[in-house]
Amino acid sequence: MSFDVEKIRADFPILSRQVNKRPLVYLDSGASAQKPRQVIDAITRAYEGEYANVHRGLHFLSNLATDNYERVRAIIARFLNAPDEEEVIFTSGSTEAINLVSYGWAAPNLQAGDEIVLSVMEHHANIVPWNFLRERQGAVLKWVEPDPDGSLPAEKVLAAIGPKTKLVAVTHMSNVTGTVVDVAAIAAGTDVPVLVDGSQAAVHMPVDLSALGVDFYCITGHKLYGPSGSGAIWISRDRQAEMRPFMGGGDMIKTVSRDGVVYADPPLKFEAGTPGIVNQIGLGAALEYLMDIGMENVAAHERTLRDRARDKLRSLNWLQVQGDAADKGAIFSMTMEGAHAHDISTILDKRGIAVRAGSHCAMPLMDFYGITASARASFAMYNTEAEVDALIDGLQFCRELFA
Amino acid sequence: MSFDVEKIRADFPILSRQVNKRPLVYLDSGASAQKPRQVIDAITRAYEGEYANVHRGLHFLSNLATDNYERVRAIIARFLNAPDEEEVIFTSGSTEAINLVSYGWAAPNLQAGDEIVLSVMEHHANIVPWNFLRERQGAVLKWVEPDPDGSLPAEKVLAAIGPKTKLVAVTHMSNVTGTVVDVAAIAAGTDVPVLVDGSQAAVHMPVDLSALGVDFYCITGHKLYGPSGSGAIWISRDRQAEMRPFMGGGDMIKTVSRDGVVYADPPLKFEAGTPGIVNQIGLGAALEYLMDIGMENVAAHERTLRDRARDKLRSLNWLQVQGDAADKGAIFSMTMEGAHAHDISTILDKRGIAVRAGSHCAMPLMDFYGITASARASFAMYNTEAEVDALIDGLQFCRELFA
Repeated sequence: MSFDVEKIRADFPILSRQVNKRPLVYLDSGASAQKPRQVIDAITRAYEGEYANVHRGLHFLSNLATDNYERVRAIIARFLNAPDEEEVIFTSGSTEAINLVSYGWAAPNLQAGDEIVLSVMEHHANIVPWNFLRERQGAVLKWVEPDPDGSLPAEKVLAAIGPKTKLVAVTHMSNVTGTVVDVAAIAAGTDVPVLVDGSQAAVHMPVDLSALGVDFYCITGHKLYGPSGSGAIWISRDRQAEMRPFMGGGDMIKTVSRDGVVYADPPLKFEAGTPGIVNQIGLGAALEYLMDIGMENVAAHERTLRDRARDKLRSLNWLQVQGDAADKGAIFSMTMEGAHAHDISTILDKRGIAVRAGSHCAMPLMDFYGITASARASFAMYNTEAEVDALIDGLQFCRELFA
Repeated sequence: MSFDVEKIRADFPILSRQVNKRPLVYLDSGASAQKPRQVIDAITRAYEGEYANVHRGLHFLSNLATDNYERVRAIIARFLNAPDEEEVIFTSGSTEAINLVSYGWAAPNLQAGDEIVLSVMEHHANIVPWNFLRERQGAVLKWVEPDPDGSLPAEKVLAAIGPKTKLVAVTHMSNVTGTVVDVAAIAAGTDVPVLVDGSQAAVHMPVDLSALGVDFYCITGHKLYGPSGSGAIWISRDRQAEMRPFMGGGDMIKTVSRDGVVYADPPLKFEAGTPGIVNQIGLGAALEYLMDIGMENVAAHERTLRDRARDKLRSLNWLQVQGDAADKGAIFSMTMEGAHAHDISTILDKRGIAVRAGSHCAMPLMDFYGITASARASFAMYNTEAEVDALIDGLQFCRELFA
């Protein structure tokens, strides 16, 4: 199908609203994406007529809700081209997913002195769970710096791996600079398990888990045009077999007695308690929506936005853009001499343009660039070339104010 | 205000649907409650016009979403009469809440041989997280049996506390028998910290945390007429001060550098990553709906249902009802000689009556009663006396089939 951005925009109710009496220009999808009518309708439909708790309910509504919920596992597997839907574990998002790996896989398997290799441009969600292991059991974090242009060559990551390295934890796309990391090359170059934070990448480009060769890959629903509290992690069967459960509760057990617990087989073993039923149903609707459009088409449209934004931003010689890797998504972190990032965000907001200011949950990368905060414009499939131009105009207005 | 069950029913779209060509009689609210229009509308409103990621966004939509989300903390505090809204920590439900306490408070504070006192009628969510501590660090689980009628006298719990007891973990209302536990008497009788699983109780009766004197109290949104993936735990400031973080990620840190992490102050310290924003906004709508009706009114209506059901069920001498404590909610677990619980559920379902069959995530209690499964009818504020009668008629029909 051909990609029609105006048709897509019409599916997102919030995009037709005004902010500060100006049409909303939403450039904060890197923090969280807006939701199409199809997702909102799926949520409403579930609550209005098809809701009950899932699993073992036996009555009609419980069976219906279970079917609607469990089929999302297959949708996620298809979206990621995962070899087996039983390797898909539902989570509330990437943070829970990475903590699941930290507590369930790494904590019981790493000894004091064992190393985790991670990049300086990781999101805090892919840092703090490993820091726990450093604080609590003496794991060592080995940091890999990106090149000055923000790219992270696979060989630099591979060069950091030593005999004590037990895990490589790396983003597939930086949430600050948009840098795409060649995680397939990393996985191909080492036998060490590789965890990939796909929170950004899966939103903006096709992901083929059958080709990547990694061990853990997580996605987060709220960035994928899906509901709050939805998400998943794909974990290879081999790694699952090495894991102990993370959270305890209903659904993840076979038997519970006063003397002990027998845990369920994966994936349920890692899914404790009543899950985010309707959230995941909404995520299923979001991924079907994306697959209908085609992730190749999404990626192509966003490349157009990226190229237009990159060219225009380069022409603003009073603006610093952090990172400019050849292979990057349409995410731009910016600083301006004399204007704080928060001021840029506030001024743009008056024009209806939503950008985020701060450290973007990536303080080590801020340190790397010698800044404490930046303004970030992050584009998504519903953004337009006119919105790129609105951003540029807004930045020029900031410049005039602060020059 | 006066309690008008028909007015309340009209707020719940799903209650007007048919199941198997019969009007739905939904008696599975103990597993998960249905949602009123007010909650569904709050979700839709958030996604259609007021959505962005929360905290530090600075732009209009982010500030709006943050306000809508953070005000739920105060709503929860008001609903539970908690002394301080800063003691309310958002979770995805009770399972995450109790795991937070197990990983964040108990794991770093309990030594091998230290005891956790818990009742045999706990839900698996209030067993398995403690079993982890038994498996991983030598904690001892000390079980307290209910009386044969299903009641759990506070003095029995207190009698189980010894010098090595570090925690009492107990439900406020059994999800199987409906037994109400006098947790205030337990807390008054010991200095040992008390964790209360309020997943059921908070749905059916007023909870006054300022009077209960407990240390940890969790609620789960999906049982409280709220969305999937919503909930909270109230933790006293003293206990919070003894806790380390559970999940790591964004929002729960002050600073992250290559060398270490400085954690945020509570409650954010215990809330990692993008939270269940719209889920919690929906929970806020659910709790406001409940407070508008008045929990005293809800409890009074459900007592009427309980008394009618109890009287009628007692008259069925071919039916066994597990537990019959004087102080109990309108939850009934039942077995019938010659009919498996699953058969009862299936036959009732054909008549549009939704009851759950199984172990109800409470296998130790099933063991206590010498059964492996039961059929459970759990009432909520939207149920009617006519639905009690429909259940009784349905059970009589089962009896005729299997006699």
